[in-house]
Amino acid sequence: MTPKGFQFAGVRCGLKNKRNDLGIILSDRPAHAAGVFTTNNVRAACVDHSRSAIADGVLRAVVVNSGNANCCTGEQGVRDTRAMAELAASRLGIQPSEIAVASTGVIGHLLDMAKVERGIQDASQHLGDDPRPYMDAILTTDLVEKWAWVSVAPGEVSEVVDARFNPNGSQEPVEGKATIYGVAKGSGMIAPNMATMLGFVITDADTTGFDLQAILKRVADRSFNCMTVDGDTSTNDMLILMANGASEVKPSEAEFEEALFGVCVSLAKQVARDGEGATKLVEVRVKGSSDPTKIARTIGESPLVKTAMFGCDPNWGRLLMAAGRAGVPFTTADVRLSLIAGDEEYVLFEDNGPAPFDAKRVSSALKADYVIVDLNLGEGESATVYTCDFGYGYVRINAEYHT
Amino acid sequence: MTPKGFQFAGVRCGLKNKRNDLGIILSDRPAHAAGVFTTNNVRAACVDHSRSAIADGVLRAVVVNSGNANCCTGEQGVRDTRAMAELAASRLGIQPSEIAVASTGVIGHLLDMAKVERGIQDASQHLGDDPRPYMDAILTTDLVEKWAWVSVAPGEVSEVVDARFNPNGSQEPVEGKATIYGVAKGSGMIAPNMATMLGFVITDADTTGFDLQAILKRVADRSFNCMTVDGDTSTNDMLILMANGASEVKPSEAEFEEALFGVCVSLAKQVARDGEGATKLVEVRVKGSSDPTKIARTIGESPLVKTAMFGCDPNWGRLLMAAGRAGVPFTTADVRLSLIAGDEEYVLFEDNGPAPFDAKRVSSALKADYVIVDLNLGEGESATVYTCDFGYGYVRINAEYHT
Repeated sequence: MTPKGFQFAGVRCGLKNKRNDLGIILSDRPAHAAGVFTTNNVRAACVDHSRSAIADGVLRAVVVNSGNANCCTGEQGVRDTRAMAELAASRLGIQPSEIAVASTGVIGHLLDMAKVERGIQDASQHLGDDPRPYMDAILTTDLVEKWAWVSVAPGEVSEVVDARFNPNGSQEPVEGKATIYGVAKGSGMIAPNMATMLGFVITDADTTGFDLQAILKRVADRSFNCMTVDGDTSTNDMLILMANGASEVKPSEAEFEEALFGVCVSLAKQVARDGEGATKLVEVRVKGSSDPTKIARTIGESPLVKTAMFGCDPNWGRLLMAAGRAGVPFTTADVRLSLIAGDEEYVLFEDNGPAPFDAKRVSSALKADYVIVDLNLGEGESATVYTCDFGYGYVRINAEYHT
Repeated sequence: MTPKGFQFAGVRCGLKNKRNDLGIILSDRPAHAAGVFTTNNVRAACVDHSRSAIADGVLRAVVVNSGNANCCTGEQGVRDTRAMAELAASRLGIQPSEIAVASTGVIGHLLDMAKVERGIQDASQHLGDDPRPYMDAILTTDLVEKWAWVSVAPGEVSEVVDARFNPNGSQEPVEGKATIYGVAKGSGMIAPNMATMLGFVITDADTTGFDLQAILKRVADRSFNCMTVDGDTSTNDMLILMANGASEVKPSEAEFEEALFGVCVSLAKQVARDGEGATKLVEVRVKGSSDPTKIARTIGESPLVKTAMFGCDPNWGRLLMAAGRAGVPFTTADVRLSLIAGDEEYVLFEDNGPAPFDAKRVSSALKADYVIVDLNLGEGESATVYTCDFGYGYVRINAEYHT
């Protein structure tokens, strides 16, 4: 269920084995655009190019390759990113400054531009309505495709339909509504280097007058920026939003933001669930703190917590330890800690001491695909972080490849 | 080679299986004392007790148990810590306020005080010159004992002799010199909860007029606080220093600090090397930055770096990525990155691009027990962080135990 006025292509040009590795999204008219980029000090040329392409708030297209991050590749890397934009622009009949460029894959190797050129030529001849070839082209060792969409109209924001948590919603266009549609790639490892998170969200909503950049930043802060697989931030992370207005439907700014958040948080959860070696999605909710995000993130990144989750161990000691070392004050006497799995809640700690829980039963419940850690610290703000467990698979994927 | 005027005991009272679990160090006279404690917001009663016992700068003894951290045990836990100090004081003929108390082990269970009382009685009858029973009593699942010592006198600081890196130094007292002697326990897992770092350093140096607390804090910041196994900080971490002056040798304050640093950094390296599942010590040196510690710590805690070290993969992309996400600015063009293993240096990245290195040869060198990551970023300060690699063993130890 993709928005009006967008076309997709994904082809295989040989940058990696077996799967598509070059993709294009094209809007049939200039789209209102915004972007959020990696904060890593070591970053790829495409990050700088795309930030500058988006600076005027308008994009027509995105071109992306997987299999090579074109990062730490010096001046030649900058030229190659520019060439990708120019080649695509020329094929699509638009300007290079209207194209965002994204790359993901191995670091420190020059792009094979002959392959890239062939790929761009091929992709530009295969643009169509089916987003799947594009979805495939951005994946690396992700195990599953990640997509989510929602429809929105004045007074109405629909439930999110997505690849994992609610896959059976209608795939038909909804008359009189705008669609927000997003795809992402997650933390699959690219031999021999690191994961990159890429997200592309497109919509045919009319967003005239909206501050899209501010909206996307707020939404990213509550979705993709609340997701962690191993705390490591890639050099190429990028989230791009394009709104072409083709539906002529104009929700309010608040409705649009709510709908966009629904898509982005679904994609973030899908990425965390498909983290390297992960067997489950772990959602960490912290309530009643002056800095709940810091506490939730510290829990979500703790290797001791993540290995306990892998081992289905209701280890409240590790959870409290991780909360305690976040550097945000709270009183143990105020703590209520529970785990939610399979629609049941298990209280582990309250009234200043461990609660009487059946460890075997909770451990069995923790075999679920989706576990929520719920930590209540008293009065204050709330935050949620999305992560995954940490097991042998992570070590295997990340230790057994050799450069 | 222990300092004059100190006695040791370590006995088994049944708090854990097979090994000693209760220890005492006693000075024959009041010792000048200092302590550094966990910054975790969730902390055991013994941390508060010991901080307050040390507040007047004087200690006579330390009593420690392993097998139970006495943490998250509410008011009863506070009473039990006080009782440990009182029972030991009564047996040793000193005041409870002259005794530091340390505990390490499982969280959230009350201490079996009948066992503790029996242990204290037993230990107080077995005080002697041999520190090994005490060393044994503080260990948990540590694979090896950790000790280090150095002799110091005006104008002279000796080389450090320690359990791992330089074990064959003289064990004889050095006439006319003071001795600084330290033992530590590291990040062995206590089923079912977390690791605790305990360090006890004793000396017969005359430290009259020294600001021991300031010295110990500075030394801890460059040694134990620069060590990370998994970034998780225990609820019970504690480093205690006692100086009883029995040698009547008085080095300068700077000589004393240098010697104390030698002992503490050796202990920190021993703890990192014996990290859960570790196969090697990884020393991360960062030079030429406004905040080199932050960069070194980010590298040292990165799961992607640590799994690459486990896999003997000279993965400069992960090292640069981790440096880049630390939030401290630098320019990739200024970076020089090398690995040092087996007394050879291998340059991986310089002149704004990967260096031509023989990946197979470097990978083979990385099988060493001790690997140094050397990252030079240009002009600025230097820092070193001690960590270990991250492999299947860590997951096994931390995921396969069930509460």
